[in-house]
Amino acid sequence: MLIRLGYDIAFQNPAPVPIVAMLNVHPSRAQDLREPDQLKLEPNIPLDTYTDSFGNVCARFLAPAGEIRLTNSTLIEDSGQPDAGDPAAPEVPVEDLPAENLRYLLASRYCEVDLLSNTAVELFGEIRSGYQRVQAICNWVNSKVTFGYNFARSTKTALDVYTERLGVCRDFQHLAITFCRCLNIPARYTTGYLGDIGVPVAPYPMDFSAWFEAYLGDRWWTFDARHNRPRIGRVVMAVGRDAADVAITTSFGSSRLTKFTVVTDEVPEARSNSNSA
Amino acid sequence: MLIRLGYDIAFQNPAPVPIVAMLNVHPSRAQDLREPDQLKLEPNIPLDTYTDSFGNVCARFLAPAGEIRLTNSTLIEDSGQPDAGDPAAPEVPVEDLPAENLRYLLASRYCEVDLLSNTAVELFGEIRSGYQRVQAICNWVNSKVTFGYNFARSTKTALDVYTERLGVCRDFQHLAITFCRCLNIPARYTTGYLGDIGVPVAPYPMDFSAWFEAYLGDRWWTFDARHNRPRIGRVVMAVGRDAADVAITTSFGSSRLTKFTVVTDEVPEARSNSNSA
Amino acid sequence: MLIRLGYDIAFQNPAPVPIVAMLNVHPSRAQDLREPDQLKLEPNIPLDTYTDSFGNVCARFLAPAGEIRLTNSTLIEDSGQPDAGDPAAPEVPVEDLPAENLRYLLASRYCEVDLLSNTAVELFGEIRSGYQRVQAICNWVNSKVTFGYNFARSTKTALDVYTERLGVCRDFQHLAITFCRCLNIPARYTTGYLGDIGVPVAPYPMDFSAWFEAYLGDRWWTFDARHNRPRIGRVVMAVGRDAADVAITTSFGSSRLTKFTVVTDEVPEARSNSNSA
Amino acid sequence: MLIRLGYDIAFQNPAPVPIVAMLNVHPSRAQDLREPDQLKLEPNIPLDTYTDSFGNVCARFLAPAGEIRLTNSTLIEDSGQPDAGDPAAPEVPVEDLPAENLRYLLASRYCEVDLLSNTAVELFGEIRSGYQRVQAICNWVNSKVTFGYNFARSTKTALDVYTERLGVCRDFQHLAITFCRCLNIPARYTTGYLGDIGVPVAPYPMDFSAWFEAYLGDRWWTFDARHNRPRIGRVVMAVGRDAADVAITTSFGSSRLTKFTVVTDEVPEARSNSNSA
Repeated sequence: MLIRLGYDIAFQNPAPVPIVAMLNVHPSRAQDLREPDQLKLEPNIPLDTYTDSFGNVCARFLAPAGEIRLTNSTLIEDSGQPDAGDPAAPEVPVEDLPAENLRYLLASRYCEVDLLSNTAVELFGEIRSGYQRVQAICNWVNSKVTFGYNFARSTKTALDVYTERLGVCRDFQHLAITFCRCLNIPARYTTGYLGDIGVPVAPYPMDFSAWFEAYLGDRWWTFDARHNRPRIGRVVMAVGRDAADVAITTSFGSSRLTKFTVVTDEVPEARSNSNSA
Repeated sequence: MLIRLGYDIAFQNPAPVPIVAMLNVHPSRAQDLREPDQLKLEPNIPLDTYTDSFGNVCARFLAPAGEIRLTNSTLIEDSGQPDAGDPAAPEVPVEDLPAENLRYLLASRYCEVDLLSNTAVELFGEIRSGYQRVQAICNWVNSKVTFGYNFARSTKTALDVYTERLGVCRDFQHLAITFCRCLNIPARYTTGYLGDIGVPVAPYPMDFSAWFEAYLGDRWWTFDARHNRPRIGRVVMAVGRDAADVAITTSFGSSRLTKFTVVTDEVPEARSNSNSA
Repeated sequence: MLIRLGYDIAFQNPAPVPIVAMLNVHPSRAQDLREPDQLKLEPNIPLDTYTDSFGNVCARFLAPAGEIRLTNSTLIEDSGQPDAGDPAAPEVPVEDLPAENLRYLLASRYCEVDLLSNTAVELFGEIRSGYQRVQAICNWVNSKVTFGYNFARSTKTALDVYTERLGVCRDFQHLAITFCRCLNIPARYTTGYLGDIGVPVAPYPMDFSAWFEAYLGDRWWTFDARHNRPRIGRVVMAVGRDAADVAITTSFGSSRLTKFTVVTDEVPEARSNSNSA
Repeated sequence: MLIRLGYDIAFQNPAPVPIVAMLNVHPSRAQDLREPDQLKLEPNIPLDTYTDSFGNVCARFLAPAGEIRLTNSTLIEDSGQPDAGDPAAPEVPVEDLPAENLRYLLASRYCEVDLLSNTAVELFGEIRSGYQRVQAICNWVNSKVTFGYNFARSTKTALDVYTERLGVCRDFQHLAITFCRCLNIPARYTTGYLGDIGVPVAPYPMDFSAWFEAYLGDRWWTFDARHNRPRIGRVVMAVGRDAADVAITTSFGSSRLTKFTVVTDEVPEARSNSNSA
């Protein structure tokens, strides 16, 4: 399956402002790209690209006063298969985890592991260890939290989600991630493209999405406490401890978002070929 | 100057529990060690050593049920000079910062940059940019927050410190770090040895200490919002975004601290030689 | 001046649910009413009316499953004068305050006096005591907090407003009230009718409004940190420590708001007469 | 049974400071007093006594700079019976509650009903309505929260207790009260004398205590989530929505507690007679 990916984002800045963007497909999917994946800036100012400590591709630039526009269009090949899962995948004892995954057990800005540990044990401590326990966490969060775009707020933490029971996709994932970590299951926040492929079209403008990964057995598995069912066509852009690590864009100063459109469309082979010609 | 470093820490565990310890001198000080720096465990169980994403040396082991004791004694050479400082060191524009320092601008578990940005700008926005602004932050925190061991609490965040104005050394640093990041100055939490060298002996048992570093000009500089004056003999053990990243020990399960002593003593040359013989 | 007051509110209830409503004009304005002020229910179920500890008129009823509609239309005479103010009104020492006003110095659900005391003293402690200090608090809150209906959330406290700097009218008042109490100035939350009389029509549907009162000299004075200028035609419905005390309606169970319209219109004398005939 | 009650409390004030004290036995116990219940001040400054909106006796005075000492010694007759309880007492539908009890259903400073409602329903919603449900709440809180004087902090709320699981007696009651209100059971905070009568002497200095009352059937019943068993000899001093309403003393300015002793001793009849002679 081929998926057209892209975005058209603009900011209005009262003064020059440094911006960090995480708008590239994650290196783990680089081999699937069928067109270059290149963030374009208007005006065409210099761009510094680097890899952060989580392995994400980041772009940094000093946006001038006035408008800056970020665009891209690329094409990726996807298996067309829904998210893999393995009900038999076991939890890994902390002493056997790959050392680089230990950081995904710790508390982070939006995931207060220290504050929700008792609750996690009370809710999920008796459930059999393993993949199905993470699924039970997703089921709980999915059934208890009400989705609504008007519930979005940049400061909302997992504890807020637990008490308010309202949120957008990032909030669902933050709470589920926190519960996983409370049970010593490494969990990391993931942001990327997720189109309405194989599902009814959602009544919202296309946006980037957030889901999470839990480490079980010998690999990371995809979970999504918001949609809570296997989906086709996820394309990872960035992973981190929580949304603070993988903001799509971070402006280090005053900046006003004036345009935001995202494209994530399945493309018939023929059309995609001509597009990329 | 030679400084004797060491600790004797014990836990009582009702069941086997994985523990991660950050009890080694930081690699940046390895060349100053005059004796091996080796965490010893009793019982003598296997130890897995690795380096985390911040460059800290970590040790991981599965503590058995019953008591586990962690000890060490080592000797380090120190310049004997107080913390370096440079009132002329400038703040670095975000677009010019070394990429690996950008993570020290983000919000983290105990440093809610998003919640304190307006306050930081109101308090320190008019102060001239540079080293002296970080010093002004330390002065403010030091004069506004009251120190007391009974004010310690593992869940306390920078916002809590801002509202309660009570804390231990980690709390002072968390608030100062947060204010720095709010102003786009990279700041990182540092934990290590800090003895009463060159100052009156404090009326508390020796403990590890926490301070922080801010990136100005072309390097990290030491600041300490708790003591707020240059000190002699700091020995870094670990750096991270905040205390969540650099806990001296983290037990992933039930564990009770039963002993905790720390040694940080200046040693006359002669005596140190005989000790290390 | 005559003002037509009224509302038309409906709830859909999956099961019978007790509701408390504070939908009457406050007794302090009873002598100004030119028509009866009577909450009507459809279906016409029994209504228990009582006065709460703050002197507000409350109505309590057991709403049946299905729809319940609350309506009223009344007419009130108003001076047509803008809010009174007296720059010379002094703060009253705590020991001289009327005893019944002391409760308006305490912390309440949405006004964390204990958490914002230091900030209040730092911001307003040097300002000369008296009416003008309360005005300075309103000016600060009004200039620092951005208004938006999408920023409303029922759990938002004064500290949240202080950190997030976003809110609706109740949020502006909660922060200002808290600062007043921190300085030992009694302040109480007020809810009522406030039409667009003498001001440009606001680009929002008419709603009830919130403002606050501070006790200075020998009386309560009206302040409004949201609009921050004298207004004509405020009609008080209820006063309390904060929004928790004076919710327009409180449902003690599941209940969905399906209709909400408020009328607050200046009425020409002739027309009002014929209306009330 | 006769119980000697008393206290000896002192403050050091850098400047004159108004103080409100709630140091009298509650009017509901006035008929049991066998000696006058009179707060004495040294120096002997004027005292203004009033009753607050909850029916508590309050004393207000302007403490001079320097030391102020508050003392009292009185004698009360007590039934000597443990707290009454009735497992059959039913919950009262909100529409049938005495109107003056409705305020004990609302959120207050330390009891965030809005934030813990879902949790309360999840934990206790399936338990049969009535006295036993309140007892189940006490059992839960008592078993989940660890007591320790070093866990006291004046800003701690019910949600903090729920997440931290550490506290002093007021914290236990705040969480239990909040859960009750979440289930539409009126609950109020109570402070008073509680000696070690009929129980082993506690290894702490005598202090005032806090418990709570829930309204079931046709009366208020005593519950105590901290001790969680019927006790002999409770003497109520004040009731309110939470600790913010019934602080033993509130200083409206800088004031340092320098002495704090409380007496609550069962007294043999003969000795008590001679004492009061």
